[in-house]
Amino acid sequence: MSTPVSPRTATRLEPAAARLDSESFLGAWQQLNADATIPHCIDNLERSGVLENFRRLAEAGADGPAGEFRGFWFADSDLYKTLEAIGWEQGRSGTGQYAALLDEVAELFDTVQTADGYLNTYVQGTPGVSEFAHPEFAHELYCAGHLMQAAVALHRGSGDERFLTVARRLGDLVVKRFGDDGHPLIDGHPEVETALVELYRETGEPAYLHAAELQIERRGHRWLDPGRFGSSYYQDHLPVRDNTEAIGHSVRQLYLGAGVTDLYLENGDESLLRAMEALWDSAFHTKMYLTGGHGSRHRDEAYGDPYELPPDRAYAETCASIAALQWSWRLLLATGKARYAEEMERALLNAIAASTSSTGKEFFYSNPLQLRTGHDGSDEDSPSVRLPWYSCACCPPNLARLLASLHGYAATADENGLQLHLLAAGTFEGGGLRVTVRTAYPSEGDLEISVSGAGELAVRVPGWASGATGTADGGEILAGPAAGEYLRVSCQDGATVRIGLPMSPRLIRADDRVDAVRGCVAVARGPLVFCIEQADLPDGVLVEQIRLDPAAPIIDEGPRLRLSGRVAALQPELYRSYRAEEAEQPEVTFTAIPYHSWANRGPGAMRVWLPTT
Amino acid sequence: MSTPVSPRTATRLEPAAARLDSESFLGAWQQLNADATIPHCIDNLERSGVLENFRRLAEAGADGPAGEFRGFWFADSDLYKTLEAIGWEQGRSGTGQYAALLDEVAELFDTVQTADGYLNTYVQGTPGVSEFAHPEFAHELYCAGHLMQAAVALHRGSGDERFLTVARRLGDLVVKRFGDDGHPLIDGHPEVETALVELYRETGEPAYLHAAELQIERRGHRWLDPGRFGSSYYQDHLPVRDNTEAIGHSVRQLYLGAGVTDLYLENGDESLLRAMEALWDSAFHTKMYLTGGHGSRHRDEAYGDPYELPPDRAYAETCASIAALQWSWRLLLATGKARYAEEMERALLNAIAASTSSTGKEFFYSNPLQLRTGHDGSDEDSPSVRLPWYSCACCPPNLARLLASLHGYAATADENGLQLHLLAAGTFEGGGLRVTVRTAYPSEGDLEISVSGAGELAVRVPGWASGATGTADGGEILAGPAAGEYLRVSCQDGATVRIGLPMSPRLIRADDRVDAVRGCVAVARGPLVFCIEQADLPDGVLVEQIRLDPAAPIIDEGPRLRLSGRVAALQPELYRSYRAEEAEQPEVTFTAIPYHSWANRGPGAMRVWLPTT
Repeated sequence: MSTPVSPRTATRLEPAAARLDSESFLGAWQQLNADATIPHCIDNLERSGVLENFRRLAEAGADGPAGEFRGFWFADSDLYKTLEAIGWEQGRSGTGQYAALLDEVAELFDTVQTADGYLNTYVQGTPGVSEFAHPEFAHELYCAGHLMQAAVALHRGSGDERFLTVARRLGDLVVKRFGDDGHPLIDGHPEVETALVELYRETGEPAYLHAAELQIERRGHRWLDPGRFGSSYYQDHLPVRDNTEAIGHSVRQLYLGAGVTDLYLENGDESLLRAMEALWDSAFHTKMYLTGGHGSRHRDEAYGDPYELPPDRAYAETCASIAALQWSWRLLLATGKARYAEEMERALLNAIAASTSSTGKEFFYSNPLQLRTGHDGSDEDSPSVRLPWYSCACCPPNLARLLASLHGYAATADENGLQLHLLAAGTFEGGGLRVTVRTAYPSEGDLEISVSGAGELAVRVPGWASGATGTADGGEILAGPAAGEYLRVSCQDGATVRIGLPMSPRLIRADDRVDAVRGCVAVARGPLVFCIEQADLPDGVLVEQIRLDPAAPIIDEGPRLRLSGRVAALQPELYRSYRAEEAEQPEVTFTAIPYHSWANRGPGAMRVWLPTT
Repeated sequence: MSTPVSPRTATRLEPAAARLDSESFLGAWQQLNADATIPHCIDNLERSGVLENFRRLAEAGADGPAGEFRGFWFADSDLYKTLEAIGWEQGRSGTGQYAALLDEVAELFDTVQTADGYLNTYVQGTPGVSEFAHPEFAHELYCAGHLMQAAVALHRGSGDERFLTVARRLGDLVVKRFGDDGHPLIDGHPEVETALVELYRETGEPAYLHAAELQIERRGHRWLDPGRFGSSYYQDHLPVRDNTEAIGHSVRQLYLGAGVTDLYLENGDESLLRAMEALWDSAFHTKMYLTGGHGSRHRDEAYGDPYELPPDRAYAETCASIAALQWSWRLLLATGKARYAEEMERALLNAIAASTSSTGKEFFYSNPLQLRTGHDGSDEDSPSVRLPWYSCACCPPNLARLLASLHGYAATADENGLQLHLLAAGTFEGGGLRVTVRTAYPSEGDLEISVSGAGELAVRVPGWASGATGTADGGEILAGPAAGEYLRVSCQDGATVRIGLPMSPRLIRADDRVDAVRGCVAVARGPLVFCIEQADLPDGVLVEQIRLDPAAPIIDEGPRLRLSGRVAALQPELYRSYRAEEAEQPEVTFTAIPYHSWANRGPGAMRVWLPTT
């Protein structure tokens, strides 16, 4: 069994043993990850010099290593995240195809790691750079955290002790150097917090949990140099219990949220949970894109002000949505509240799903909700199509590790029974039940759930699913599948539960304070947000000219939707006198596709939010 | 007579000798610049270490200079721009108050400048940095250009030869090192192009003009390392004749436009003018804010895609609007087209005027058109109020040099007569005419123009001034003061011309493709754009709740406007199902103030674009 986290105390829920149906949406995506994305990541670890950074240190002679360190300071983490993906994938499928790579890497780690446990090829491989001398940017504990998470995954996946040994030596170094009496160092990029908790869970060594606690309690006292972007960029502006507004670099904010919640899951300190729930409200209720993207600002990869959510310049980094999912998952474990699972699903099926191409080998780093006609896509920061790799390659291997562990996020169990959160087709076991879910969700809304064993089955009814129906066994109608809550059914062995979710397309509007989408609606069907692409429009009509008629019926054409509206004329002036009357606009019908599938037909204009007639 | 440029050939117009009425809007602002802004800049040259950077080099012993260079690489330019302001101010008012400073600086330059003319305190004062080794970022020619412009201003203002001598030695070094047979270096930040043309104009030395031409012709061949932001950041992505879309770092784009237009003004190469007019169209008709701000992106201080003009994250750097004015001025000189003067006025009276506080001692670097309730103003990149100085202090001394030379932009003259462009109160002489303009413009729309001498008087009628009236002498009604053109009157000595511009408040809307202001209108009166501020709203009503009724009358209360509309309720959900009907909204009246005067009453929410009922 491989699971992203396995909390031991102070929690209501535990992950259930799980397997996704490989014919289903999530299962097929996970298989694409195994077949294409993980091998692609390994190819690019070679190509980008990440593995070479280790080899040149391992082969260094008396004069030091040949050549120069390649890539960003945190390039080691690209390897660690890929190793984590391999670990989960070994646990899932039992693959042995990475044995030679793992052998080489284990030997490299063994050679490069210093006697006291230090391991970082940027610092070790760059003359004049000292250990832990540049906590604002050097990412040493960030990389250490990813190594720990990789080691945990490899250990859980195949019992491999080699990486766990390396991770423990590194963890022991953190404990020794930055313990109660040590240097009060924190890292500019949170990540080691959740990793240390995981290392504690895997090894039972309480010193790692205490090290995580120190990292968290020391944060927010402006110990780090604020630099150009300010203390909030490093999540060092306020102590974690006082910071109730999501602010600063979004991935750092969200990883920190996950780490603090992990600490709560272990130590039960309710003041941490209260702060995390308030912070989560800020992030998810005032600063999140409809697609589950986080962080609107390109400049510092940061959250903007509340409601500052431009669809065109959405940064919405892939890693931020992954981090948001990981944090929501931990709050789900902590509280069992459906809203956390709902937001996991939103991010997974929209922002995260959109970040990977249909081949599994091209990726978006930034996930805008609009691409303009005339967009300059030459910048890696906002390309017009997914790219095979990035100079800052954090996202592709982050996707790989998420997808390889995806089955672990679908369901949980407790002493009462089993809880289904992602409504995924597959088999899930825990809490005395083993259930098989058959469904074409998220394309269709019918779920058939076969139950072995006796106990309570809880199925999340999405917030948009008003009018959902439930029947048990031979037709008993279940009362109260309320939208946004869990439908709970006491099951006997051999029971069958059927859920029907209403999948009519629907229109969504944003809070008026989201100025950037005023006068617009978005189209959704079930959990999927839709978009229109230039490729689907009649000749001579630009995406920018489409006006949706919100009163017109929407025709459901399977994965696509057929919408009606008008074609607005383009005006010749940038600014002109206001007049209430507008010219007659010709009628048009047009197609919308799921947002997650955009940009698979080459570059072209796209938008999620559609102005209305 | 002090003028920003004095073209010699291939131009229809020459700047007129000019003096602004110190009681008028522009004249009072220019006086505030003299009384407050220039002295404030000098104080901050001391405080920020800019002068000290020169002194430590002048006082360096055999072991090299003590201490370290302070500030950004281009900190020298803060001094040069302030010197330029002093030069224009000496020409304008004859002040001698800066004599001691100028003496010290002249001596510092003399000591620090090398035998072959090199002068840059960052490069000379930083161990290991070589001359012209880092053209992407070191800004050596950029600083050299500002030194040349300062020297020209000081020479024109008071006949001071000392700085011109320094500038010539530096210019000679550029000619020698980067001439036809020299190193093909260009600078990452355009600026030296226009400066070399000015140095040529002041000295008559054609080698400087040729050096400017080489700089311009070499640009756009991707000679500079594209770095993180790409070749367009450095304006090195396309040769100047091929680049017809405003793109990349906006100040660099606009300074380059000014330099290329200056070259055209001297060499008459029509292919340069054609390219500049097309590029100007792109910048001003698809990428400019209503306030005359340029460059929407914070990340790389760059132009966005066409119509990507978010009001809240408007970068709209003060220097970009100044550069835009300088470029439009040169195109006005080249073509005499009213549209260039119109855009000078827009920028000057809105974005540029807003960048300075009412005390003349605090400044905006970035000029947003919206500040949200809950804005995090702790970042120097987007503060809630104007700051006294910036770590990157390019804007305040740029304002000082613009304001000190402002009278030079108001009018031009040619062989036929005199042309009034900025409709400023003051006295203007040229083309055989001497005119005195009396007006409270831009607050009021009546101009009374007394003429001495005989010839053609041309007065620009703004594009928004449909229905303008003109009378000559005793009441002769002038035909055809068409909006957006020049009213031309043949005047006899002693004539009086009266112009009446309609100043009723009006509503403006943006092209539908400016998604960020969909469903909104802006309010203007004459050339001034208005905004609403939280300080003017009833208790309990947020700026974000205001909905303007576009059909309601607007009450003109002198500098303020009284508007009517509704108070929208705040919704509890970030995203919710679309429903056409909206709740009843209570009526409200509220005050709008000129945008240029916002944020003079402390921090608070503001917006230019108002959603309609």
